[in-house]
Amino acid sequence: MLDLLALQKELLLRHIRPGGVCADFTMGNGHDTLFLSRAVGDGGKVYAFDIQPSALESTASLLKRENAPDNVTLIHDSHHNAAQYIKEPLCAGMFNLGWLPGGDKRITTQRMTTLPALQTAISLLAPDGAVLLAVYPGHEEGRLEGECVSSFLAEQDRRMLCCSRLQIVNSPTSPYFFLIEKK
Amino acid sequence: MLDLLALQKELLLRHIRPGGVCADFTMGNGHDTLFLSRAVGDGGKVYAFDIQPSALESTASLLKRENAPDNVTLIHDSHHNAAQYIKEPLCAGMFNLGWLPGGDKRITTQRMTTLPALQTAISLLAPDGAVLLAVYPGHEEGRLEGECVSSFLAEQDRRMLCCSRLQIVNSPTSPYFFLIEKK
Repeated sequence: MLDLLALQKELLLRHIRPGGVCADFTMGNGHDTLFLSRAVGDGGKVYAFDIQPSALESTASLLKRENAPDNVTLIHDSHHNAAQYIKEPLCAGMFNLGWLPGGDKRITTQRMTTLPALQTAISLLAPDGAVLLAVYPGHEEGRLEGECVSSFLAEQDRRMLCCSRLQIVNSPTSPYFFLIEKK
Repeated sequence: MLDLLALQKELLLRHIRPGGVCADFTMGNGHDTLFLSRAVGDGGKVYAFDIQPSALESTASLLKRENAPDNVTLIHDSHHNAAQYIKEPLCAGMFNLGWLPGGDKRITTQRMTTLPALQTAISLLAPDGAVLLAVYPGHEEGRLEGECVSSFLAEQDRRMLCCSRLQIVNSPTSPYFFLIEKK
């Protein structure tokens, strides 16, 4: 059976080289941060963003517990300010939209900042870099956020970016994802 | 860059075992027939359907030229009659909607027979079998056919089937595809 989560990571890994620079734009509990940290290894660098202090605490503790490479910078700021922190071209970026699992459901990523953050992420991509963005349409804000991202990506110049969408069509509340690849 | 054509074949191959039985529901020039023939190998079997005699001729000649395994049955009939010919459970089926490349563009697959053929294909699937269906939305009948298939798949019971859609969102006329996996 198609495992979309496994497939999306597999597709993103094709863009990540050891020693590369990545960003987790929605740190949450840090699972993607850990994934990126391991993918780039000791010579690499990972920036991770979240507006909730508890996300930084959970992630720091996860990275320690999992003995992750010492290559992660945790940043307590909104992802749409990422360009203030990241000065290197990115080989990969990840967005996991929605709320912090186990956290306050009132604090979700918001369309108002998601799109500027995604634009920033795209502008930071190195040639052959990619952004992976997961949408959770099971709640209303998530559903709207996904539609908003889809319309935005549909307008991107195909000579510069290849924007793919992967979705289970007979499970409308399941997460789906976009892969945005720079040419 | 994501190569959707390569990815779809890669995903379908995960369902094909040497010695298995497959079907190419839209033979055309036989490229998918050849792909399936090689995937199941000498102990396997491939049924291929087309309503145009020229498709059977092109395919027979391609299989010979490429020295394909002797495991293909070419059938001159519409794919919606497939159940009259196929008696074994299928590990994989392929649909490449639209017209025969280089052939008569007035003869395209039609929504009236595409859906019955797809239903037949799904009913013939073995557990863990899969159907891959490519849509060409660059012409009007292709676009409508894709929407029709999408609506049909959205209604399928997720406990029986997992129906995925993979598409380049910023290239609306590019082919996209559905992967339908039986649980």
